[in-house]
Amino acid sequence: MPDYQAPLRDLRFVMDELLDYPAHYARLPGAEEVTPDVVGAILEEGGRFAREVLLPLNQSGDREGCLLEGGEVKTPSGFQAAYRQYVEGGWPSLAADPEQGGQGLPHSLAMVLNEMICATNLAWGMYPGLSHGAADALRHHGTEAQKATYLTKLVEGVWTGTMCLTESHCGTDLGLIRSRAVPTGDGAYEITGTKIFISAGEHDLAENIVHLVLAKLPDAPEGSKGISLFVVPKYLPDEAGEPGERNGVGCGSLEHKMGIHGNATCMMHFDTARGYLVGAPHKGLACMFTMMNAARIGVGIQGLGLTEASFQNALAYARDRLQMRALSGAKAEDKSADPIIVHPDVRRMLLTQKAFAEGGRMLVLYTAQMVDVVEHGQDAVECERAETLLGLLTPIVKAFLTEVGFEATNEGVQVFGGHGFIQEWGMEQLVRDARITRLYEGTTGIQALDLLGRKVLMNQGETLKVFTKEIHKFCQAEAANPAMAEFVRPLAKLNTEWGELTMGVGMKAMGDREEVGAASVDYLMYSGYVTLAYLFARAVKQARSALDAGSEDAAFYRTKVNTARFYFERLLPRTRAHAQMIQAGAESLMALSAEDFGRGFEI
Amino acid sequence: MPDYQAPLRDLRFVMDELLDYPAHYARLPGAEEVTPDVVGAILEEGGRFAREVLLPLNQSGDREGCLLEGGEVKTPSGFQAAYRQYVEGGWPSLAADPEQGGQGLPHSLAMVLNEMICATNLAWGMYPGLSHGAADALRHHGTEAQKATYLTKLVEGVWTGTMCLTESHCGTDLGLIRSRAVPTGDGAYEITGTKIFISAGEHDLAENIVHLVLAKLPDAPEGSKGISLFVVPKYLPDEAGEPGERNGVGCGSLEHKMGIHGNATCMMHFDTARGYLVGAPHKGLACMFTMMNAARIGVGIQGLGLTEASFQNALAYARDRLQMRALSGAKAEDKSADPIIVHPDVRRMLLTQKAFAEGGRMLVLYTAQMVDVVEHGQDAVECERAETLLGLLTPIVKAFLTEVGFEATNEGVQVFGGHGFIQEWGMEQLVRDARITRLYEGTTGIQALDLLGRKVLMNQGETLKVFTKEIHKFCQAEAANPAMAEFVRPLAKLNTEWGELTMGVGMKAMGDREEVGAASVDYLMYSGYVTLAYLFARAVKQARSALDAGSEDAAFYRTKVNTARFYFERLLPRTRAHAQMIQAGAESLMALSAEDFGRGFEI
Repeated sequence: MPDYQAPLRDLRFVMDELLDYPAHYARLPGAEEVTPDVVGAILEEGGRFAREVLLPLNQSGDREGCLLEGGEVKTPSGFQAAYRQYVEGGWPSLAADPEQGGQGLPHSLAMVLNEMICATNLAWGMYPGLSHGAADALRHHGTEAQKATYLTKLVEGVWTGTMCLTESHCGTDLGLIRSRAVPTGDGAYEITGTKIFISAGEHDLAENIVHLVLAKLPDAPEGSKGISLFVVPKYLPDEAGEPGERNGVGCGSLEHKMGIHGNATCMMHFDTARGYLVGAPHKGLACMFTMMNAARIGVGIQGLGLTEASFQNALAYARDRLQMRALSGAKAEDKSADPIIVHPDVRRMLLTQKAFAEGGRMLVLYTAQMVDVVEHGQDAVECERAETLLGLLTPIVKAFLTEVGFEATNEGVQVFGGHGFIQEWGMEQLVRDARITRLYEGTTGIQALDLLGRKVLMNQGETLKVFTKEIHKFCQAEAANPAMAEFVRPLAKLNTEWGELTMGVGMKAMGDREEVGAASVDYLMYSGYVTLAYLFARAVKQARSALDAGSEDAAFYRTKVNTARFYFERLLPRTRAHAQMIQAGAESLMALSAEDFGRGFEI
Repeated sequence: MPDYQAPLRDLRFVMDELLDYPAHYARLPGAEEVTPDVVGAILEEGGRFAREVLLPLNQSGDREGCLLEGGEVKTPSGFQAAYRQYVEGGWPSLAADPEQGGQGLPHSLAMVLNEMICATNLAWGMYPGLSHGAADALRHHGTEAQKATYLTKLVEGVWTGTMCLTESHCGTDLGLIRSRAVPTGDGAYEITGTKIFISAGEHDLAENIVHLVLAKLPDAPEGSKGISLFVVPKYLPDEAGEPGERNGVGCGSLEHKMGIHGNATCMMHFDTARGYLVGAPHKGLACMFTMMNAARIGVGIQGLGLTEASFQNALAYARDRLQMRALSGAKAEDKSADPIIVHPDVRRMLLTQKAFAEGGRMLVLYTAQMVDVVEHGQDAVECERAETLLGLLTPIVKAFLTEVGFEATNEGVQVFGGHGFIQEWGMEQLVRDARITRLYEGTTGIQALDLLGRKVLMNQGETLKVFTKEIHKFCQAEAANPAMAEFVRPLAKLNTEWGELTMGVGMKAMGDREEVGAASVDYLMYSGYVTLAYLFARAVKQARSALDAGSEDAAFYRTKVNTARFYFERLLPRTRAHAQMIQAGAESLMALSAEDFGRGFEI
């Protein structure tokens, strides 16, 4: 069975040393007392929960899946008990506002814990995972009465939440939705329609489920400007605020999926279900984006967690499995063969996983500081900068970390050879579970359009410049440091090229808007590789300082420098391909007619 | 449900026009009468069988899987009837020797049909698929009596075959096997041991199963030089040659796998099973390689088939699914949104699939001519050249086409968005089925070592030069043709670089053998991209000739040129990354100790 240990040492490095979380928390209103000791204790406890409670249910949950009977969904054995333990441990409310029953700890801390949950049981983690988004939307856009009714319950995890957006004919293009909301005359609405792909839409973990639903009012304008957001509880709260009358919403069927079998992916029927408008009429999409941005970062963290899980188990296997001798001569002469970790190509796969895990962790924690500042920061200038950078990095976190997460989990299978394909070992499950992360909350293609079209080009690259300037400053500060040259020189070159490529696409896009879509995914991947290069270069600087100061943990820091070197030598060169493809233009993509595509097989 | 049409038009282009199969068959002993009309009729019939008989069983076979009860394996519903139809149609014996009941058609033709089988039902195709390898091994290494007993039955498909190599502790490193063969004194042997991952090890499709088993004789030398090959039938043939007494071999359990659920992957117990030595004692590995080389090309064809299947269905979906408007303005104003095929990034994904399908098909058919010549050629010089090139291309066909096949099937899922993750649509099954192809018959890592270590460096690049010279000649011949410049210039540059990179690794490897493993997978991928570039450049030349000649099918040829352009602009640039990684050397891979890898999470 797969094992997992929370990467506490690496987290300590990234938080305490690289990104100076102690200072960050000291300045963050409400987080002044979140010292490294406090953080350490919480992360250790969280790691234990993930390993001891969630991990043992991951494979069994995948095998069992969910069962729909008489409209009720039965989650896999043990999921309920684990959820109870999660709620009793106070985990759901960790980062929530004390006013709504939360513990008021920083969001960044919840994000770190989320990595551990995703690493050990993604399907389970999606039950509580979506409640945060629902709570966020209500906190930002709900009335006081709505907040009073739903927020504390969601925050404490007594109830869970969902996001009901997609319909069978539309996912990305929500302007096409058909669900309707008709005013009842008493301030409420009757919601009717069918939603698909609703994660945790129905289950047996919590006593109520709070659906946030997109639907159209009778007088709605056409398209995406005519969508409103409604809160639709499974049970209508009674006067005491407890689950009362059953509402007209139910699960029609469960999807049979490639992975995340333990999570109930529901088709939800709303049949004149009673709902309440959240935010202004026709402004539902904007409200939903509040949820979506957090959810997108959450999905990036899923990619990270699965990467780490796959890495740890592939490493254990590679140390243990004896097969062939090293090409340079036997390394374990007392054994029948060498452990496969002696082989350079096995090391290449393990280091790919390791570099994406550690790079992804830096990216998430770097982004998490911005989330903290946007939520709680006091300095307007700082908040604006954080919001700008957060907007830029969100699609990168989401799409880049899930793309490389899929690659990394596949490397894990590859290290296991044929055994990787067998369910028993658990490696193929990580691939199947990872596969959804490239799709939901906006596919990689959608994230790439968001990055290049909205975040970068819409203001002529000004947002990007905020980030590239930061990288430029770092490179300049280290320019005279010979020990950093192998990292800083390529980084500085890429940073300049990033701007040039952006300008190039921008110019072309003025002539033909399709140039944006033609370049977007390669642009996103390029951006991800450069961003991680920046963070790895900073990690090297930090590690070198520790080594120079004579750290007792020299092996950790030397390993960090070498992992960065591997990243620069073996993963960063992919930017050479992406740069060429960004510049290739739309022509060869647009030349064929829809019919042309089929000329090899259609008669 | 997914659909499939055999790519007959593209096959005609590659066979009749690009690679001049009519002339190839005309010169091939025994194939003189295999005219384009004959080929066309066979392919059309094969395509119909694949589409009408195999395709409808693909999803149901995946869902049902195989069942082991009382030692008997029940295959999914319909598999038996389809197999009967396959045997009655004479398909198994198509390319076999008429002396053994075969129809004596060229192997290349069977390979083309194999693409269709793999595209429509890989799990089913693996039942007959392994019989060819078993028959090959017996034909090359069996005694006359063994041939008489087993060959005709295998060739006709009345019996099927297996390859029993892997044991739980060893796959790649067969020198470690523990299965034993003890002489019985009457010329036979008693085989005892347990084999795992035996595809089609037990099933209900045929009346007997012929296992080819690796085991060690009592006096066997240590390691891979002490392995012998045995034929071990499930039922011992009686005097009439019909299945008689049950032999001591049986299926102990079925593996639960990520994909190919319809195929029985068996753990096979041999308990003093009666077996017969094939070939010389202790020379079993060499005999097994006869089977393995054909099997490796067969796995490459699986990658190709799955690519084509995923492409065709993603294309249908992209034409049909309405979502968003084109960035450059609405294209289907009468509809609620544009079909997603208008979006450049969707086109990028479809073209990636299309280019890998068409490029892979050219590579397989180019290689298939060499298989024909090696099997039936009369000219010694030509045969030697074919054997040399075949050795070089086999690991590329196997590993490159399965790596890009996995990518292509994943692009298929991505085109479907969230629906791609749902089993009903069939796209995720193609990914799960494709995943095994990167692993079995030698992982990509093993193929890469075979290519770089054995095929290329072992004779100082002489073998590679046979191929790069051919490419060089083509480039020279086209150098003055301005219409070909956009293809020939980059190809010529890459071809030169290929030699330089090879020399570079070779020089380094003289100092440190680990440099081979450090560069190998990137080298293989680089080689694959250049090989496909060569074939696409030739395809352009051919297409241009047809256009210049005023072909009535101009749309097909223009599409071909554009697909090649896409390949050169959007896929070939990946060589820039691989070239850098090939040159990166072993240092950053070998620097860490086995302990160092775990320093981020191990305490």
